[in-house]
Amino acid sequence: MKNRTLIKNLGREVGKRVTIAGWVDVRRDHGKLIFIDLRDATGIVQMVALPNHEETHMSANEVRPEWVIAVEGIVNKRPEKMIKEGLNGDVEIEVTKIEVLGKAKELPFELGTDINIDTYLDYLPLTLRSQKSQAIFRIQAAIVSAFRDYYRSQGFVEIQAPKLIGDDAEGGANSFDVTYFDHTAHLAQSPQFYKQIMVGIFERVFAVGNVYRAEKHATTRHLNEYTSMDIEMGFIENFRDVMATEEGMLRFLMERLNTEVAKEFEFLGATIPTVPQEIPAMKLREAQELIKKETGEDCAKEPDLEPAHERFLCEYAKEKLGSDFIFITHFPLPKRPMYTFEDPSDSGYAAGFDLLFRGVEITTGGQRVHDYDTLVTAIKNKGLDPEKFSYYLQSFKYGMPPHGGFGLGLERLTAKLLGIENVKEATLFPRDINRIDNRLSQ
Amino acid sequence: MKNRTLIKNLGREVGKRVTIAGWVDVRRDHGKLIFIDLRDATGIVQMVALPNHEETHMSANEVRPEWVIAVEGIVNKRPEKMIKEGLNGDVEIEVTKIEVLGKAKELPFELGTDINIDTYLDYLPLTLRSQKSQAIFRIQAAIVSAFRDYYRSQGFVEIQAPKLIGDDAEGGANSFDVTYFDHTAHLAQSPQFYKQIMVGIFERVFAVGNVYRAEKHATTRHLNEYTSMDIEMGFIENFRDVMATEEGMLRFLMERLNTEVAKEFEFLGATIPTVPQEIPAMKLREAQELIKKETGEDCAKEPDLEPAHERFLCEYAKEKLGSDFIFITHFPLPKRPMYTFEDPSDSGYAAGFDLLFRGVEITTGGQRVHDYDTLVTAIKNKGLDPEKFSYYLQSFKYGMPPHGGFGLGLERLTAKLLGIENVKEATLFPRDINRIDNRLSQ
Repeated sequence: MKNRTLIKNLGREVGKRVTIAGWVDVRRDHGKLIFIDLRDATGIVQMVALPNHEETHMSANEVRPEWVIAVEGIVNKRPEKMIKEGLNGDVEIEVTKIEVLGKAKELPFELGTDINIDTYLDYLPLTLRSQKSQAIFRIQAAIVSAFRDYYRSQGFVEIQAPKLIGDDAEGGANSFDVTYFDHTAHLAQSPQFYKQIMVGIFERVFAVGNVYRAEKHATTRHLNEYTSMDIEMGFIENFRDVMATEEGMLRFLMERLNTEVAKEFEFLGATIPTVPQEIPAMKLREAQELIKKETGEDCAKEPDLEPAHERFLCEYAKEKLGSDFIFITHFPLPKRPMYTFEDPSDSGYAAGFDLLFRGVEITTGGQRVHDYDTLVTAIKNKGLDPEKFSYYLQSFKYGMPPHGGFGLGLERLTAKLLGIENVKEATLFPRDINRIDNRLSQ
Repeated sequence: MKNRTLIKNLGREVGKRVTIAGWVDVRRDHGKLIFIDLRDATGIVQMVALPNHEETHMSANEVRPEWVIAVEGIVNKRPEKMIKEGLNGDVEIEVTKIEVLGKAKELPFELGTDINIDTYLDYLPLTLRSQKSQAIFRIQAAIVSAFRDYYRSQGFVEIQAPKLIGDDAEGGANSFDVTYFDHTAHLAQSPQFYKQIMVGIFERVFAVGNVYRAEKHATTRHLNEYTSMDIEMGFIENFRDVMATEEGMLRFLMERLNTEVAKEFEFLGATIPTVPQEIPAMKLREAQELIKKETGEDCAKEPDLEPAHERFLCEYAKEKLGSDFIFITHFPLPKRPMYTFEDPSDSGYAAGFDLLFRGVEITTGGQRVHDYDTLVTAIKNKGLDPEKFSYYLQSFKYGMPPHGGFGLGLERLTAKLLGIENVKEATLFPRDINRIDNRLSQ
């Protein structure tokens, strides 16, 4: 649109005639005076249609919530500064002309009202328009862009990893089948193999893309399609290099969020965490001892942490160690994937880590096996067939450096940063066992 | 690795002892002197192992192509400056110590030798290591990053569009089926519906992600999974606003490529095109007249352009209009998707365009229908069921501005920029009817 002023910039135009455009957020009919809050992607402004502009007053009478209109009007300083949340409180518009660009039918509910999650999901094309959702997904866009910018600055090359894969070589029950002409293909659960292969080319790579888990749960934690932010780096000394790069990225990320979306955090009542120079780290065994000592619960024989124990460790890290983040390292090797590197100084344990943040694991990472013969043996030891991994195994057959990496789920990180209980509210169009956009018939 | 010097930085270290690491690119045994070209992600350097370092000479004797080694040595200015392509010609390394980090088995062929496309694809974890492939995919990473940076700078918000979709509402034969628990889902052929929905939230959005076409062809042009770079923008005056933003992006992209990857273009013998201030545009009808006049072929009744005619128009644009790019506008409405906006000043024709570049169409874009009732009618006129589009239709039911956008295939653009005949060579891990990594059994 020519000569359009964005709502965020109206403060510069006091006393002038402007054209603005957007959605009718709220319309309040006071008889002679009609007030319309107009929303564009940059803010909300109150407009008033006075009875002396007869035609305009009639138009203002006609419009309804979510109609899209272009408005000509005069920018006035507001008689008293009324700061409402998200409302451009300094100015209001005296409307002189309204042009309707797109009408709307009657809404099923008022935008921004408290609705349950199912209704929210049933009406995403409408409900995502709320200021709350706008803030969440602007923050998500800032996260993913910061992730990429950080790794580009560290010499990592972006790769486009395929999502359509052939053999479901690891044989998990969690993979979706795709009818691929006369064959069955699968949707990738992670870009793991491809990012490792690409270490052989670029040494350091990152990938951001969808991954798929055929989990049959419809909980506040599960998504069947989500966005994974992945890195893999060669020529590491050990898995602590991977932890260090994740620390660096997280610090960069929080600075970026402060610069770009502090307003959105404030609107959502959320706090941007600080990342300590060195995130506290403990071995799983130490964590289990601590849990026993502090809670009396003995989980020393478990190969992983229960959700309740993840929450406990996060609270402990926050209160005793002053950190929103904590690394848990050295999980027992048998439950870890075949490419897991064994810590040479701690036999039987993985040279890897989980990163916990505000109660949940947000990352799994570590060093990978890079020696061909060792990897073939590890595959066999898992009861798997090396032949099914032959494509991936070429990398190791033809020379690979020590390397490692991690993956980080974008939606879960977004939810945890913002204190959102249900990860589906931090996912634009979440898919679960019961829903792909619409609810699936039972 | 601590204290590692990257090969590209060796010029600064003449006379000093350094540690470098990488892959053995070539090893030449001259008896007393053993020459090794070492390759890391930043370059290649020649190293020489002299017989006076006995242990090192033995190690140098042992290593083979693609072994990964860390090397200590002295940086010497080369006695005569031997500039070889991609070789760091100014310095060489006098090796004092070799540590083997990863061994390799014997290679099936020498890296960088001329192999056919099938062998190239059979061995991607190895063949992608060639300097040629490195250059191609560094350029690809630069393209996608420039695309995002441009649109971020223009106030567009990045969205994560789902790839797993429910009803294949447009009923195309080209969609892959996914077994989704007790249902059949599909892989998205484009983020079209989601980016339009998101115009209702952010006005201007972009998305980069995989899309899927179940095309049964295995040609040099087809991919079954590729990366689409998409934008959609609200409050446009008409479809020429969409063309203008694509022009702006392309100019920004070419500048970025000049800054970031000019060396890679040079290595590949490719030229970065210039983008004219205004890319020439003609209506399809005008193009068809021109084709008839210049070639005698009458294609005036066709709703689209044949590949040969796309090539002709590109040659014409290059020779007569001085542009590598040409827009073809106003395709007949009947063959276009149901969301296509009709040009109000040219009844029966789409307010949209294709962008041709070096012989092929790289973009389709245009204005979309934004009025609910018009869109429902358009869906019915295509013989489709509006009920199947109910989720998407909410956007229009609840108010949408005039909007439009385009999509641009990353791999095809990469191939055309680099003069690569087969798009599979511009795709990291290409999938076609015969191959997902490995060849599929017949």
